[in-house]
Amino acid sequence: MSAEPALATSLFADRLAEAVEHKHSQLIVGLDPRPDLLPVELVGDVQVDRAAAAEGCARFCRGIVDAVASYVVGVKPQLAFFEALGAEGFRAFEDACAYARAAGLLVIADAKRGDIGSTARAYAAAYLEPRGDDPPLADAMTVNGYLGRDSLEPFVAACRRNGTGFFCVVKTSNEGGADVQDLVLSDGRPLWHHMARMVHELGEELIGSRGLSNIGAVVGATHPRAVGEARRLMPQAVLLLPGVGAQGATPADLARAFTSGPASALVNASRSVLYAFRSTGEDWRTAAALEAARVQREVWSVSGW
Amino acid sequence: MSAEPALATSLFADRLAEAVEHKHSQLIVGLDPRPDLLPVELVGDVQVDRAAAAEGCARFCRGIVDAVASYVVGVKPQLAFFEALGAEGFRAFEDACAYARAAGLLVIADAKRGDIGSTARAYAAAYLEPRGDDPPLADAMTVNGYLGRDSLEPFVAACRRNGTGFFCVVKTSNEGGADVQDLVLSDGRPLWHHMARMVHELGEELIGSRGLSNIGAVVGATHPRAVGEARRLMPQAVLLLPGVGAQGATPADLARAFTSGPASALVNASRSVLYAFRSTGEDWRTAAALEAARVQREVWSVSGW
Repeated sequence: MSAEPALATSLFADRLAEAVEHKHSQLIVGLDPRPDLLPVELVGDVQVDRAAAAEGCARFCRGIVDAVASYVVGVKPQLAFFEALGAEGFRAFEDACAYARAAGLLVIADAKRGDIGSTARAYAAAYLEPRGDDPPLADAMTVNGYLGRDSLEPFVAACRRNGTGFFCVVKTSNEGGADVQDLVLSDGRPLWHHMARMVHELGEELIGSRGLSNIGAVVGATHPRAVGEARRLMPQAVLLLPGVGAQGATPADLARAFTSGPASALVNASRSVLYAFRSTGEDWRTAAALEAARVQREVWSVSGW
Repeated sequence: MSAEPALATSLFADRLAEAVEHKHSQLIVGLDPRPDLLPVELVGDVQVDRAAAAEGCARFCRGIVDAVASYVVGVKPQLAFFEALGAEGFRAFEDACAYARAAGLLVIADAKRGDIGSTARAYAAAYLEPRGDDPPLADAMTVNGYLGRDSLEPFVAACRRNGTGFFCVVKTSNEGGADVQDLVLSDGRPLWHHMARMVHELGEELIGSRGLSNIGAVVGATHPRAVGEARRLMPQAVLLLPGVGAQGATPADLARAFTSGPASALVNASRSVLYAFRSTGEDWRTAAALEAARVQREVWSVSGW
């Protein structure tokens, strides 16, 4: 633990709150670059190799960042789409993180990592620790807590040292998540309530000046009732809410998420913003900007702030 | 699903069984390259940059593969240690996979990925699908099933198409895994039994000619009783058993794992092999080979085959 108290602005939760209040936005855009869906001008219309596909993805992410930067507080690059392009893809991920940071956006690495001991420390180092003289790749990342509380502690330690944060997967937006997360425990609670309590307890030592913790939770926007329960179980956690847009949830379903403050929930939209051009026929940047602005206004309105 | 039945040798479970019977080994070595622990000749004794550290890790992995290839059936590169070195690290991971494959070893990418829909498909593509004209990076990977059965189906589909496999995290070797995995459900079972049943059911459609499935389970060797229960709950699954060596388990604890066949369990050793030179003072390759040979014999002996 650092011997000196961290400056308020060095905590992820505080940086987030400042950005939300400044921009009147609780929107983040997921960067899910798929070579098969990119604008033709970026990858051409023929089969390309991994390096060219990765370069197209990097250019796409930069264009999206430029297009949406006024309307969002951050971006959420999804590692899977970059890893699918190998080392060149990972380079594109690093490029997207740096570009978004330079644009003043927060970066949430959607990695859903989870492992134990020195392996968990390596994952925390990969995303939440400074890299030599460079800042951490991300301001926060997503993690999976199935491996238990001690598997999360290396991430907590990295956040304590660096003012970074993480979001633990609690209740996911897919239908099949219920197979595991809704299992009823012997005390009558669903499993995900137990995970929520673990997140709440871990987060209590990393509370920022707005009363929000650096440790948040992923809760699918497709389950409006669960969003309300999650708010109650984790009053200080920032709730990261995927599932709006392509997965069918609407901002109106989410009002209860914001009762712990304007920055106490983040709505993520990915495909509906990134690939808006495919249905509207507009320039891809224009289409993304218009959709991001529309969702930003709608979310801000339902948030009640 | 392919219209033609797959050749027996194209299934991961069958390739594994052939290797185990040929080599009289159920050992895999985890590739956990840590720049701070590498032999001085590979990284020098001063602080190095990420590119140099990644190059040192790649050379270390090659040396370890050469040293242990006679004694092991495969290697298990741990993604976290490569990702901690960024794109250069991911390149070193790709190099290690290709080098191990060329040495006739199976590759199990220890990634513990888990996500939904198109994201899960991207993770499967990253590790279990051919990359252009190249084979998949890995023969199998580890996954996390907290996101439910539908989150695993894209991995099942990739395995069906390509003869690759995966190991779902069921019961982990760390003490804290109990916080979640041992939670008692309303029907009296621990949560991990439910996960085991899910693995068993998913694996039933991908059984090879030796009666083993392409879909296996990670079960910590540090819980000998759980290993026996896992064997009973998942009779056709290959059990991947981490925790031997540095984490304290011994091969003698694991005999019950092998009752479904000589290849029905794999023992993983990582640090105790990789960094054997740090306690013995021998050349790092020699020390790794000696330790791998020792564990191989011990495991083969207790397996009863």
